[in-house]
Parts: sequence; structure tokens; C-alpha cells
Amino acid sequence: MSAKDRIYVGSKPILAYVTAVVTSLSRSDSVSVMARGRAISTAVDVVEMTKRSFLSDLVVDGIDIGTERLGEAGAERNVSTISIQLTKPKV
Amino acid sequence: MSAKDRIYVGSKPILAYVTAVVTSLSRSDSVSVMARGRAISTAVDVVEMTKRSFLSDLVVDGIDIGTERLGEAGAERNVSTISIQLTKPKV
Repeated sequence: MSAKDRIYVGSKPILAYVTAVVTSLSRSDSVSVMARGRAISTAVDVVEMTKRSFLSDLVVDGIDIGTERLGEAGAERNVSTISIQLTKPKV
Repeated sequence: MSAKDRIYVGSKPILAYVTAVVTSLSRSDSVSVMARGRAISTAVDVVEMTKRSFLSDLVVDGIDIGTERLGEAGAERNVSTISIQLTKPKV
């Protein structure tokens, strides 16, 4: 398993992503939670719920935002993105 | 005007907040864009649209996420929050 996992947040129930984050941090030291558009709010919910309910000492290492251009040529649109880097504290 | 303005993003059209950010940065060096819940995605859109269309050299200084407890006693719920700190580059 790579040292840097990525979890893409979409429209599944939040707990599905929370479980993925917890599982990923049991195997590796860091994970990035990524999302686009409306799912950005959900990505923040995932991180906050993980911290609140499962890993209270979870560390948010950094948060990046950006823009991606999506869609066919001539009908492109800009979509905002977020990437939240998480690490678990050393035991 | 204080050195640190705050703009709370809610359900108005995105351009209303973009205008507020641009206006605020014309008076002070830094501004924080704040949002809760579903508006978190909109806050990221506001920052990205401001950067893309108005202030291409806008600097995202830092992003914080957190949780607030809202509602009446006995019916409280957790709501995620975001705060995006922006500064304009020195001319």
C-alpha cells in the first residue's frame, strides 16, 4: 500500500468515506481526502466526523483548494476542488 | 476598517460574495471567507472565482476547518465550518 492514499468523496453516505479514512489510516500514516464541486462540503464533514467519532487525535496537515476545467470542448466549466491532507499522530 | 475583515458565505448568488471579497481587499490587506454546512462548497467557489476573474495574484494564506454545535438543547447537531484566509500581494 502506498504511503499516501487518496479518498475521493462523492455522493455515497458520509459514513462510507469515514470508514475508508479510518481503514486507510490503519495501513498508512497519511491520507488525502479529495472532492469536487458540491461534494466539498461533504469532504469537510467526513474529516470532522472522523475526528469527532473515531480518531480524536487526527491531524489536519494542510488543505488545498483549486479549480479544474471539466466537460467537452466548447462546453467546459470550472469546478472547484479541495484536497485535505490527514496524518495520524505517531504512537 | 479593521485589518481583518470577515465575509460569511450563505445562500446569495456567488457574485455577491465575490464582490464583497474584492471590495474588502481594496480597503484592507486581508480577509477571511467563512462558511458553514452546505455553504462550504460555495465559499471555495467564491475564492476560486475571485482568483480566476478578478485578482489573479490573490494568496490563500491558510484554510481551517472545524465543527460547531448548533440548535436548541436536546436537538443539537454538529455543523462543519471552514475559514479561508486571503491576502493580497504587496504592490
